[in-house]
Amino acid sequence: MIAGSAGLGLSFPIGLAITILLTIVAFSYSQTIHGYPSGGGSYIVARENLGTLPGLIAAAALLIDYILTAAVSLTAGVAAIASAFPALWPYQIEVALALLLVITLANLRGLRETGTIMTVPVYLFLVTYIPMLVYGLIRLSLQGPVAPVSPPAAVSPLTLVLVLHAFSAGCTAMTGIESISNGVPAFKPPESQNASRTLSIMAFLMGFLFLGSIGLTQYLGVVPVGDETILSALARSLLGNGPLYILIQVTTLLILAVAANTSFSDFPRVTAILAKDGFLPRQLTGLGDRLVFSNGILLLSAATAFLIILFGGSAHALVPLFAVGAFLAFTLSQAGMVAHWFRLKGQNWPFKAGINGLGALVTGTTLVIIAVSKFIQGAWVSIIFIPLLIFLFLQIRSHYRNVTRQLSLKGLPPSLTPAIIPRVVIPISGVHRGIIEAVNFARGMTSDVTGVYVELEPGHGEAVRQVWEAWFPDVPLVVLPSPYRSLVGPLLDFLDQLDRERHDGHLSAIVLPEFIPAKWWQSVLHNQSAMLIRNALLHRRRTLGYQQVIIDVPHHLKK
Amino acid sequence: MIAGSAGLGLSFPIGLAITILLTIVAFSYSQTIHGYPSGGGSYIVARENLGTLPGLIAAAALLIDYILTAAVSLTAGVAAIASAFPALWPYQIEVALALLLVITLANLRGLRETGTIMTVPVYLFLVTYIPMLVYGLIRLSLQGPVAPVSPPAAVSPLTLVLVLHAFSAGCTAMTGIESISNGVPAFKPPESQNASRTLSIMAFLMGFLFLGSIGLTQYLGVVPVGDETILSALARSLLGNGPLYILIQVTTLLILAVAANTSFSDFPRVTAILAKDGFLPRQLTGLGDRLVFSNGILLLSAATAFLIILFGGSAHALVPLFAVGAFLAFTLSQAGMVAHWFRLKGQNWPFKAGINGLGALVTGTTLVIIAVSKFIQGAWVSIIFIPLLIFLFLQIRSHYRNVTRQLSLKGLPPSLTPAIIPRVVIPISGVHRGIIEAVNFARGMTSDVTGVYVELEPGHGEAVRQVWEAWFPDVPLVVLPSPYRSLVGPLLDFLDQLDRERHDGHLSAIVLPEFIPAKWWQSVLHNQSAMLIRNALLHRRRTLGYQQVIIDVPHHLKK
Repeated sequence: MIAGSAGLGLSFPIGLAITILLTIVAFSYSQTIHGYPSGGGSYIVARENLGTLPGLIAAAALLIDYILTAAVSLTAGVAAIASAFPALWPYQIEVALALLLVITLANLRGLRETGTIMTVPVYLFLVTYIPMLVYGLIRLSLQGPVAPVSPPAAVSPLTLVLVLHAFSAGCTAMTGIESISNGVPAFKPPESQNASRTLSIMAFLMGFLFLGSIGLTQYLGVVPVGDETILSALARSLLGNGPLYILIQVTTLLILAVAANTSFSDFPRVTAILAKDGFLPRQLTGLGDRLVFSNGILLLSAATAFLIILFGGSAHALVPLFAVGAFLAFTLSQAGMVAHWFRLKGQNWPFKAGINGLGALVTGTTLVIIAVSKFIQGAWVSIIFIPLLIFLFLQIRSHYRNVTRQLSLKGLPPSLTPAIIPRVVIPISGVHRGIIEAVNFARGMTSDVTGVYVELEPGHGEAVRQVWEAWFPDVPLVVLPSPYRSLVGPLLDFLDQLDRERHDGHLSAIVLPEFIPAKWWQSVLHNQSAMLIRNALLHRRRTLGYQQVIIDVPHHLKK
Repeated sequence: MIAGSAGLGLSFPIGLAITILLTIVAFSYSQTIHGYPSGGGSYIVARENLGTLPGLIAAAALLIDYILTAAVSLTAGVAAIASAFPALWPYQIEVALALLLVITLANLRGLRETGTIMTVPVYLFLVTYIPMLVYGLIRLSLQGPVAPVSPPAAVSPLTLVLVLHAFSAGCTAMTGIESISNGVPAFKPPESQNASRTLSIMAFLMGFLFLGSIGLTQYLGVVPVGDETILSALARSLLGNGPLYILIQVTTLLILAVAANTSFSDFPRVTAILAKDGFLPRQLTGLGDRLVFSNGILLLSAATAFLIILFGGSAHALVPLFAVGAFLAFTLSQAGMVAHWFRLKGQNWPFKAGINGLGALVTGTTLVIIAVSKFIQGAWVSIIFIPLLIFLFLQIRSHYRNVTRQLSLKGLPPSLTPAIIPRVVIPISGVHRGIIEAVNFARGMTSDVTGVYVELEPGHGEAVRQVWEAWFPDVPLVVLPSPYRSLVGPLLDFLDQLDRERHDGHLSAIVLPEFIPAKWWQSVLHNQSAMLIRNALLHRRRTLGYQQVIIDVPHHLKK
């Protein structure tokens, strides 16, 4: 909302139209809340009622929008604070990235749980903005409207395009609605009623603030001076340059940071749902070592940082993009609700379906108009990226399905017999205490043990062989030359050759002696050759049908 | 050189003094080349002749200087091109980073070998700059000197500080000398003569270019206009705004890129020598999979990028820092040469020692004067960072010595007997085809096998147990609850408990079933739990004196 009006001189009727739109959507969504008390984001509602593809379209649109919301809110917040402290203008990107870092860290540490911190900016916003607007309205009613100063943008006639620009600009407010719908379970019981009430209050307040500030800006003839947002100009004209004005700007920054933060609670939740359904990498489900959603948070943070750096101060150019995504998700979700009522029937269902149908109609019409009229200004990006994302979703699910099929135990012959390792190879970096346990262990498994030394420095091999023969006279050692100083290459060639020469079974083992430093950071001082070898061996395709086992024998250093 | 004069309006006498200094150092260094035909950087000369600590001081100073050279040269090069195309000024940092990326990639791919590319800018520089200066000198001799316009800096009297500022500014040229001395083996045979001749030619050309441009700038009364380097102003006043002027600016950028590139051939070489001596992480020696010096290149690139971002357009502020490092290395290297001649004697040695002694005296005096007078402007940074680096060098060597001592076979009892594994634990993520080989392999090793399933989702454990018991009726399965959804924590606790309960030997094994996707990039779609477990186990300290072996049994997926 603020992001949008920051860039625009809007006329009051357009603001009114947006408010009406908002009201319809809010009404329609409050039904989603009652229909899906366990939290029904657009993805779930569309998927359950319309099918997988509409669900994925909604999901792709939403994910893009969450990233855009975070980027646009942060840059708009920085614009607000830089209006008060112009020295910050050259550092817009840096300040926005610093804010992003703070929000990311807070969310990684689980800020979502301590939601009370987040309510402070919201209340601060209400107790500063509402009195300011009321004061402005009183002043307006006393002194009467100023002859409207034509803003720079007013050169172009108030065509359909301008109306849509205003629509798009107002859309940021919409994510608040989607956010409540996604997060129903986070409300206190009775969840549905509380979420629904919050939604109504929010829609009302947003309408008042939106209409109030647009109306005042226009009728008081506020014009921004130099590098200043229009809301900063409004606050300055009402409150002067004193501490109250600065409080308003700081509050604007904070409320926009909260707006960015809603992305941080929603994006990871939606990616987790998608990951659970197999459409995104499994790591995003947050299973694992206390990694609850942290991968989703990091992904969002990286994408937002990328957009901030790419678009910098001109992030409001992304608003048309945002509008396409938001209205696409809204339309699909509302249409899904219509199907939901038709299927479920129940009390008053034709009325409920009617409301959702009206919502779908309004948002769908808006979507088509925006997509067509704003095609060149950025809507085409959505039309490229949404199908790309859906393609990615489907590819990922197809991979997971393949894996499940390959891992199935069906049709496996019941020949589960213990397997004996017939031969072992030990790559060594020299003869020292770190390899003793490894050699002993290998000799405990089989009598067919071969040591291998890759000669990285020409001539070193002979010395190693002498020490080896003194300690392990009964174990053969092979010295491999390495003309290109490669460790892994000659080793893999040797193993391949061995597999070809010996036909003594389909199982063999590599024993890797690995010494572990006393402190983890000391490992930067070592070559990690065991790790290099292990990675190469794990991904080595066994062409001859051999199965190779890799055995790490750690040797712990004491200091 | 250009970096320095870019920031300064120098007076001719100071330029002359710098040229004399340069000549002395060049003379003195040509002896180092003959004394150390295998390439004697300041580190080697100082270490061999004066001891380890002086060697490390020289090395620390050099490493810092190579980074500064790369950063200062690139930002100065960008300033040169932005003088011709002022639209680039706001993107100084971005352009410098892009150049850095190109140089880094070229060096990683082995540009050093195809040195011919590098000679193009050098010849271009000579065939454009020399004619320009000659033309300028002719014009000067025809029209006579202009009444010197007082540059902005001339407000301060020409004190010792200003002289030193000029000295420092001239120092960038010095690294060329160190570079030749380091890289003697890269010359065609006879290496010493060719390197020495190159050094003389370089010193002469630099003196001519340096004196010529400073003299012309002063006597023609050239004053930069707006955001412009002084050399750009000189070229513009001589050549106008046409293509010749642009050629000069492009050439300046290219020659400075070459200057930055010398750091890229020297820094990795010096770090490799230090790493071989155990003062830096072993990875920098470039042993390993074709990683020839690439770690050194990446380290230099990261440090340079950091400085460019930190100092941006004002990188010439780093010049005092640079001067301290350069003169410290020069002084130590020359002093080392004096000791070298005293020890070695040989033909004409008192004369040779005298020349090196003069070099050491001149550079040493300059060092003291700079360090004292420029202490506040940045020299203090060197005085902090050089000891810090030396401390790091010594810590690293002490770690490597500790490791060598711990890995020594001395005093090891000759009880090298095959070791038998008494018991095996297999963590599983479910019962599927990927674990079959692992279980069979474990049962081939011992009859004491235990399966472990960590229950990340409450309630899943029972279903897993039923399938397990159907397939492996003779192997017990333990289901571990995980209230915090942690995979590794409960597993480690279970293993600790097992070690405490069983006293059946000091060796046990973990068998990790690990499925390997067909394509490497598909691994982003899997949880990498085998990797997580392996890392945790490798670094687990065996408190009860147990030795634990980790066995990877890969299962290759086909698509």
